Amino acid sequence: MLRLGPLAAAGRLLPSGPRLGPPCPAGDRVSLSWSWPPPPLRPVGDRGLLSRQVRATAGSAGGGGRGAALKTPKGTRDHPPAHVVLRDRLLAAVVACFKRHGAAAIDTPVLELRETLTGKYGEDAKLIYELQDQGGELLALRYDLTVPFARYLAMNKITKMKRYHIAKVYRRDNPATTRGRYREFYQCDFDIAGQFDPMIPDAECLKIVHEILSDLQLGDFLIKVNDRRILNAVFAVCGIPESKFITTCSTVDKLDKMPWEEVRSEMVGEKGLSPEAADHIGEYVQLHGEHRGVEPLALFFQARQGGPAMKRHKAAYTTGQAHRCGCCCTGRPEAWLVSTGGLDLIERLLQDPKLSQNKLAKEGLGDMKLLFEYLTLFGITGKISFDLSLARGLDYYTGVIFEAVLLQQENDHVEEPVSVGSVAGGGRYDGLVGMFDPKGRKVPCVGVSIGIERIFSILEQRVKASGDKVRTTETQVLVATPQKHLLAARLKLISELWDAGIKAEMLYKKDPKLLKQLQYCEDMGIPLAAIVGEQELTDGVIKLRDVATREEVDIPREKLLHEIRRRLEP
Amino acid sequence: MLRLGPLAAAGRLLPSGPRLGPPCPAGDRVSLSWSWPPPPLRPVGDRGLLSRQVRATAGSAGGGGRGAALKTPKGTRDHPPAHVVLRDRLLAAVVACFKRHGAAAIDTPVLELRETLTGKYGEDAKLIYELQDQGGELLALRYDLTVPFARYLAMNKITKMKRYHIAKVYRRDNPATTRGRYREFYQCDFDIAGQFDPMIPDAECLKIVHEILSDLQLGDFLIKVNDRRILNAVFAVCGIPESKFITTCSTVDKLDKMPWEEVRSEMVGEKGLSPEAADHIGEYVQLHGEHRGVEPLALFFQARQGGPAMKRHKAAYTTGQAHRCGCCCTGRPEAWLVSTGGLDLIERLLQDPKLSQNKLAKEGLGDMKLLFEYLTLFGITGKISFDLSLARGLDYYTGVIFEAVLLQQENDHVEEPVSVGSVAGGGRYDGLVGMFDPKGRKVPCVGVSIGIERIFSILEQRVKASGDKVRTTETQVLVATPQKHLLAARLKLISELWDAGIKAEMLYKKDPKLLKQLQYCEDMGIPLAAIVGEQELTDGVIKLRDVATREEVDIPREKLLHEIRRRLEP
Repeated sequence: MLRLGPLAAAGRLLPSGPRLGPPCPAGDRVSLSWSWPPPPLRPVGDRGLLSRQVRATAGSAGGGGRGAALKTPKGTRDHPPAHVVLRDRLLAAVVACFKRHGAAAIDTPVLELRETLTGKYGEDAKLIYELQDQGGELLALRYDLTVPFARYLAMNKITKMKRYHIAKVYRRDNPATTRGRYREFYQCDFDIAGQFDPMIPDAECLKIVHEILSDLQLGDFLIKVNDRRILNAVFAVCGIPESKFITTCSTVDKLDKMPWEEVRSEMVGEKGLSPEAADHIGEYVQLHGEHRGVEPLALFFQARQGGPAMKRHKAAYTTGQAHRCGCCCTGRPEAWLVSTGGLDLIERLLQDPKLSQNKLAKEGLGDMKLLFEYLTLFGITGKISFDLSLARGLDYYTGVIFEAVLLQQENDHVEEPVSVGSVAGGGRYDGLVGMFDPKGRKVPCVGVSIGIERIFSILEQRVKASGDKVRTTETQVLVATPQKHLLAARLKLISELWDAGIKAEMLYKKDPKLLKQLQYCEDMGIPLAAIVGEQELTDGVIKLRDVATREEVDIPREKLLHEIRRRLEP
Repeated sequence: MLRLGPLAAAGRLLPSGPRLGPPCPAGDRVSLSWSWPPPPLRPVGDRGLLSRQVRATAGSAGGGGRGAALKTPKGTRDHPPAHVVLRDRLLAAVVACFKRHGAAAIDTPVLELRETLTGKYGEDAKLIYELQDQGGELLALRYDLTVPFARYLAMNKITKMKRYHIAKVYRRDNPATTRGRYREFYQCDFDIAGQFDPMIPDAECLKIVHEILSDLQLGDFLIKVNDRRILNAVFAVCGIPESKFITTCSTVDKLDKMPWEEVRSEMVGEKGLSPEAADHIGEYVQLHGEHRGVEPLALFFQARQGGPAMKRHKAAYTTGQAHRCGCCCTGRPEAWLVSTGGLDLIERLLQDPKLSQNKLAKEGLGDMKLLFEYLTLFGITGKISFDLSLARGLDYYTGVIFEAVLLQQENDHVEEPVSVGSVAGGGRYDGLVGMFDPKGRKVPCVGVSIGIERIFSILEQRVKASGDKVRTTETQVLVATPQKHLLAARLKLISELWDAGIKAEMLYKKDPKLLKQLQYCEDMGIPLAAIVGEQELTDGVIKLRDVATREEVDIPREKLLHEIRRRLEP
């Protein structure tokens, strides 16, 4: 699903500078244990564990290479082992959730026909990577996983499917690094395709977001929900012609990073709405009469400015009391419901004299009510907010839309702004598969995309803050020798360990010094050393050393595997 | 490592036709258990479990799409869930081996600067996918994982690293489908970079191939080993000028699919060697005086022709007796050592009046001897053969080279030819990193690539032959209701299961029929159904149904999670 753009995925709040630099030069040699889940979020800078080490060498590595530039393409990066370990753990948690909900995995090519992508992304189509015409078909790199999924369904005439897909997508965003955007990044999508009773799959998508964000212990979060039909009805009752719905929608979508005044002037100036219509829209999308809680972005900005309103905000937020924040949120009044979810707002809008006459609005609000009923049964409305200002950028949504944001809390350890913001998003797109089907047959779909790149950067900061090193290998035993001329003994022993499924290494030297071998264990976090010397060979034993305690015990050779396994038990 | 070309990875023996068609349309709905490892190889056709179902729809899906072509790019394919499940299990086995040997994972971008790839692949450079010049850098898709690894090492000034990398690579091979080649395919690479004592890392690479092929129970296999220095020495003593070493080498490499006569005529006709030099080379690369065993390809062809020589071959092979097969292997005499490994041949070549005078030959043969010593300690020489005809296609190898092939055995159940052949390969490339380093500093490397695509197709055939369906989801419990108006009860219950980490599904209908729900369990291989009806709600119980036995028991609600977990224990 194309729900989190590279902007969303990489830190809107960062003034400049790449989020992560080129790879850690010593990434394969960091060590020690790393626990999951990591300790609570400490909002440190949006520069990770690895990027600092990296910067030292990035400059020198940036050029040269015997005449050739020694670098990765603009906007891309290598992932050193410590990245991959962390990313794999994160992905494992996401996949576990997708599987818990009965999804099957598919994979599609990185390459698609250009025409497959044509007409799906509106203005963003200019960001698609196109391949050179080398003869044959015209190709492009996939821009998201949603359009390939729709193509897959149409091509195979599949009308029902619950699938997940975790893969890289490509966007020629420019400039990339100065705004912390990457041109190659992961998407983690879960989608339910098929004609079903209303709001049951939609509610499950929200449950999934709730589960993943809870499991990952990323701190407090809020899932904003809206419906394209309600938004369109708002535009209609405000007198906007249908031809301007999509463009107006994309302006409303900017409310999360612009104050209302700017959004309004874009509506009037660029999009050509009348000032009255814009004001009328503003009344709806700014609605916050019954809302509780605070605007995290406003709160964040207050914190940055050291403003006094911050504590008031926090008190209101943590106690769940109603709090009017016109006092400080100068740009935009808060429009998020924290604890009531939104049933009261739905009821109010259903009574609205204009909206209540609009067929789309009635449909959308009716479904929204049903959705909240299901979410109540799931017990997750505490983190869900019906928010009329949520619009989502993409053209293809047709119903429910949603977006999850992390809530930044006050923290004395703030050193630099952490990029809180959207970490998941999605919605219903009932028309996309029909665009591919020769007869235009529709397959209704709803799905969610987890913003793994942003979550990764948060976890990476935590690991850094914790001071722990990430172990990048899983070696359990180093096979060592204390004297010369014992390479054969080491090779024989390590072979036995490998064949028994034990993760083992040895130094690739004929006669390494014992001290060097033990040092390697400590550097790499290897817990055990199996030492075979002349005396041990004579006695038919192996000296097993606990690297942490430095205790050594002679184990009869035939009991070695058993003893190693015993010690490695959790 | 670029060791297995798309040809190697996708069935050289197949006359024509794609190995796998477009995706299985019902791929997300196949079910039942699938055991690992699968039953022994039954050599059925090179068309898998999934492709047959697929062909029925491929024709109709091949075109259309409201004016747009509804297909994946030429030479690429979607992977439906049953593919992904099988592939993930296969990759997990490979990764487990790489981790057992202490490797760390890295990841690099799919995109590289074009200049990074320039001058690394010789003639094959024409197969590189280039991106359109959309402004900015000129880019290309990676052709293998070895060149990016070398770039990574040089860019980060890493001089020691044991890493693995599993990712897709791209080759604009043409034509793709008719020869069973894919343009997007996985590589699984393990490499050891660093200056170490000779042959210790090289021996470990061979041990890894041995472990993986044994673990996967792919049947009998043989790992052919040679050394570029020995080959070059052979060329030198045969009077070939050094400028023609590489091109001669790539002709020798064709010996595994062409008879010697054809190779010889290519040497003389296309490569411009003198007939005498070619004959002289032929004496070396065809050496098989002390060799035992049979030529599997010849054996295979005999089997196809029903020839009488087949049984003789097999007897010779299985008893390990010397067997001269000029009788039937009309094209090419066998050149593989099965049981003696090759120490005898090494000794013989060390006595060769010409080679023994050549510095490169002495180095190469000396190292080969050392390698066999280490392989003997690992206990794997039974599957290793020193084979002078092994050349490997790539320019960048500088020392040991190797390639693993599966051995086709006689089997009464043969229906169609199975594509036995190269399933792993690799070698030493000591100069590649230096091509990237601004000062040309070398980092010696040796590595191996597992031909996962070919292995995948073999396993896929086995699954098909076994008649088992691949379960593509892991759902443990279906939450069901026997009457109408119980959606709320289902939603509440499934939410509890999800929160307890149990994999659960329900049908997305308000009032589904019980029979449909139970049928879904059977179709999808879901072992348990948790049924909540009006009576159960009144009694405070859940009816737990064992789908296989159809037994139903009422479980008190508070004991449900415990009971489900108990039943799901292995």
